[in-house]
Amino acid sequence: MDTNKPILVRYGEIGVKSPVVRKRFEKKLIGNIKKLIKCKITINQGRIFLFPEDHEKALKSLKKIFGVVSFSPTVSTDTDHNSIKETVQDYIKELMEKGDFDSKKPFAVKCRRVGTHDFSSREMAGFCGAAVIELTNAPVDLSNPEFRLFIEVREDKTYIFHQKIPGPGGLPIGTQGRMIALVSGGIDSPVATYLMMKRGCDITILNFNNHPYTGGSNEKIIKIYQKLKEYASGSELRLYQVNYGNFLKKCTEEAPPRMTCVLCKSGMYQIAEKIAKKEKALAIIDGSSVGQVASQTLPNILATRYSTSIPVLSPLIGLDKTEISEIAEKIGTFPISILPDSGCSAAPKHPETNAVLENVLEVQEEIEMDEELAKVISSLHKIIAE
Amino acid sequence: MDTNKPILVRYGEIGVKSPVVRKRFEKKLIGNIKKLIKCKITINQGRIFLFPEDHEKALKSLKKIFGVVSFSPTVSTDTDHNSIKETVQDYIKELMEKGDFDSKKPFAVKCRRVGTHDFSSREMAGFCGAAVIELTNAPVDLSNPEFRLFIEVREDKTYIFHQKIPGPGGLPIGTQGRMIALVSGGIDSPVATYLMMKRGCDITILNFNNHPYTGGSNEKIIKIYQKLKEYASGSELRLYQVNYGNFLKKCTEEAPPRMTCVLCKSGMYQIAEKIAKKEKALAIIDGSSVGQVASQTLPNILATRYSTSIPVLSPLIGLDKTEISEIAEKIGTFPISILPDSGCSAAPKHPETNAVLENVLEVQEEIEMDEELAKVISSLHKIIAE
Repeated sequence: MDTNKPILVRYGEIGVKSPVVRKRFEKKLIGNIKKLIKCKITINQGRIFLFPEDHEKALKSLKKIFGVVSFSPTVSTDTDHNSIKETVQDYIKELMEKGDFDSKKPFAVKCRRVGTHDFSSREMAGFCGAAVIELTNAPVDLSNPEFRLFIEVREDKTYIFHQKIPGPGGLPIGTQGRMIALVSGGIDSPVATYLMMKRGCDITILNFNNHPYTGGSNEKIIKIYQKLKEYASGSELRLYQVNYGNFLKKCTEEAPPRMTCVLCKSGMYQIAEKIAKKEKALAIIDGSSVGQVASQTLPNILATRYSTSIPVLSPLIGLDKTEISEIAEKIGTFPISILPDSGCSAAPKHPETNAVLENVLEVQEEIEMDEELAKVISSLHKIIAE
Repeated sequence: MDTNKPILVRYGEIGVKSPVVRKRFEKKLIGNIKKLIKCKITINQGRIFLFPEDHEKALKSLKKIFGVVSFSPTVSTDTDHNSIKETVQDYIKELMEKGDFDSKKPFAVKCRRVGTHDFSSREMAGFCGAAVIELTNAPVDLSNPEFRLFIEVREDKTYIFHQKIPGPGGLPIGTQGRMIALVSGGIDSPVATYLMMKRGCDITILNFNNHPYTGGSNEKIIKIYQKLKEYASGSELRLYQVNYGNFLKKCTEEAPPRMTCVLCKSGMYQIAEKIAKKEKALAIIDGSSVGQVASQTLPNILATRYSTSIPVLSPLIGLDKTEISEIAEKIGTFPISILPDSGCSAAPKHPETNAVLENVLEVQEEIEMDEELAKVISSLHKIIAE
């Protein structure tokens, strides 16, 4: 651990919360970081300073901690003109050796200051700029520089850096309560789950195994779980499954064929609500996006959600498939989701796209849906992913 | 109208729909375009060609038509080697005069072909590349060009272009049914509304006038309405309002003070559901985002939505404030939303953040919420924005 090279971590929305909430969020954020990164942490007026054991690994891991808006590897020194000058010049020298500072291109120095000092921020910026020029003779351009050097003076410590690496944003996971996420092997539902994790929610993944109408393998769902788990430091990401094949059999045999998909979706929500109670979860997450596939019409959304009384949150409801796929690529679930698998053979050729609520409720009663769903719930089991 | 300069318009998700749905979507898209842009339109295997009266205006307007993925101003000519060569050289000449083609930088030609011809796509690309070299002597770099020239051969017509301007994406507005959007003067709800318009939904905006707990001016909501209307070509964007002040008065006087915001939100949903019936709308849209403000906790979301039986869709539920603000900037609602206004003075100092459903339902009964909301609904009126 190099105590002179802390990583400065910035967090965003937490800053605007009330002092009590803010303290709780900061504590959770620091706890989540410590679970993933071996490090010491100090906190100073809205800034976290991280002293990691493994610097490179820490930089990678910080991209997976929700609540982190951005971070900067820094070099720190005492707030003293001689030390600062020496540190700035060493810092720039090292960058030049790596080819990361070009003395032909214009640069600028920006200084922020917290505390009482006998110099202003502008004076310190000028002082550090002069130190860089003495070393490199590089031109200064304050309005349009190609390289920015940041000097952050905090009381008797001064931090020097040039990078602001974006974090994932959001809120610390574990600050918003638990939700049940309906996750399949497709592209959408893992992205929906990721977005709600990002907003601070603990997640219980609920997967429906449609065997024999699908292959029944758990390989994809386990891989998706493992990928999402990378972002879940400080939270228990759970993975549950129910066997849904017998219920689908009942639907295909006893209900009008066009209605299978509507009954399937309605059943998923109803089961999720029951499991939410056991899990003390307060909402269901799914990957719905209006109009994306035939079944995601407004009439179908209304009819399938009617029998559920806890909120169904659909963070993708207003996104295009291309936008969803881009997020999937970014978070790493896309390559898993596009692994080949057989579609669901219980789906009819012409699924209902304009479900009438009254008809759906009637059929649900006819096939004794409550009883059937109770059987499904009794098949609830954890999938062991590790 | 220049019949040799059509704009090629690409649409995305529509392409994957069944033939019947696709035809309906295409027809709606073309109708929506025609409502906004004076033009002739031809359609050819998944491509729309637009012959506008005002070319510049059309390019601006296409950025506001949902369903348009991208578009390219083209020059067309007959599919004949001499004509193509001449047109390509004229095209490049004009770009050079405007400084949009630099003969020192590497270029590439890409050709797509639909129909039967006595040349391959690759041959045509080579032929056009040679024509450019003859004129400019510019270097070719197929793998990493700084300029790309596209040749699209469709039967006996050939289209030449170099720009792919992104459209807003989404689905043609008017293909997904109507929703009631709860819109205030803030940053979030106009963005939520925009996203659902983008997914093809007709919208009835419902605004709650909280006077005397707010200033009561309709200036902001009218401006937001007008901005959103720019994206609503082919759809009737409606703007309704109810007077909510008396109901808020009842809440502040007769219910526990901390519960005002929860009752206010629950009331909004219940009123929106009633108005949805009149409007034949199938869902409610709002700007909720988990954890963004104290009232948007999971317990509050559950308690406020419980008394509503149609779906509440919250397209921002998984987004950060910075992400929402970026969209607001992009679509032009941000500058309106940040116009100064007084906050709502009915909000208590310590609003409930952990609402208990049973308590909320009990209080709703105590204050005879149904009767109060009926009075609110009787104040429903259109706001005349134009």
